[in-house]
Amino acid sequence: NKVPKKDYSFSNRGKTLEDELDESNAFYLANKIAVIHKKPVPVQVVKVDYPSRSAAVIREAYFKTPSTTDYNGIYNGRHIDFDAKETGIATSFPLKNIHAHQVEHMKSVTEQGGTAFLIVKFTVSGRYFAVPFDLVERAWERMESGGRKSIPLAELEEEAVEFKAGYLPRLDYLKAVSRFGIS
Amino acid sequence: NKVPKKDYSFSNRGKTLEDELDESNAFYLANKIAVIHKKPVPVQVVKVDYPSRSAAVIREAYFKTPSTTDYNGIYNGRHIDFDAKETGIATSFPLKNIHAHQVEHMKSVTEQGGTAFLIVKFTVSGRYFAVPFDLVERAWERMESGGRKSIPLAELEEEAVEFKAGYLPRLDYLKAVSRFGIS
Ligand SMILES: [Mg+2]
Ligand SMILES: [Mg+2]
Repeated sequence: NKVPKKDYSFSNRGKTLEDELDESNAFYLANKIAVIHKKPVPVQVVKVDYPSRSAAVIREAYFKTPSTTDYNGIYNGRHIDFDAKETGIATSFPLKNIHAHQVEHMKSVTEQGGTAFLIVKFTVSGRYFAVPFDLVERAWERMESGGRKSIPLAELEEEAVEFKAGYLPRLDYLKAVSRFGIS
Repeated sequence: NKVPKKDYSFSNRGKTLEDELDESNAFYLANKIAVIHKKPVPVQVVKVDYPSRSAAVIREAYFKTPSTTDYNGIYNGRHIDFDAKETGIATSFPLKNIHAHQVEHMKSVTEQGGTAFLIVKFTVSGRYFAVPFDLVERAWERMESGGRKSIPLAELEEEAVEFKAGYLPRLDYLKAVSRFGIS
């Protein structure tokens, strides 16, 4: 007996940002717009059982810290590399959501000519931003030299590309990414 | 769900092709030549214990069939996507080493302007080939229309790019890939 929740953005609000991105990537793939996949969660497997007549069962394993971002792929000949970040904070994006090795990785990708960025969702307001790596990097360096530990919403409004949730695809984030350096 | 066996009887002292590629990718990364990573093995996690004061332990999980290739990344602005295949067969590369969904994936990547290929190692002779997707695709289609189920060594010698193992990097496979369509 679920009571449908009031919904401002076409679909149910219980979906995580990663669910929304997976759906969008499936749409992009089916429509030959882009080939973007989420990487599997890295796991250190310690013990595996091989029961006869059935599949191997992992009996002991541990989650590892990812050394890169979660998503990559290709869009119109461009290498795309990004991570998805949700925050419950209303007025800024806390940099503690990013790991130093992710910043390093995005920097390496950028140096090779790829397009690296974050997709940030503010869960309270339901606002989405595609945040180019150069903005992430500037904020990161500011923090490292003793400045604030977050990117203020006002900075995102000015320098990132905001986009809205829709229907097909759920999140047309690659359209937002196409506007990096333009808007 | 095969667990790759290590083979210690050849001159590379037990290193699998994947070990050799991981080393080479570490060299490429450290020298800012390319950013290529192996994707984690996909695992379906069913049960996780959360012991107090220590890390979460996965107690039941299963290996999943990967839906893409194992490696991707960026090299000189080009999106790179490939899989590594070892074979103990001496005179041909059996196509049963490739899954239909990998062929589909490499086709999608190629359509988006990426560079998709296989790295094939013949373990008996220690020969390595970078095999461009168009050759893979032709062999695959030949098999599907009732033809042979492998790519003969002679065809690889003629249409793929052979390369030798070295020191740093262990496998300079991206140099071989740069010669696609030239040699
Ligand atoms: Mg993430
Ligand atoms: Mg493989």
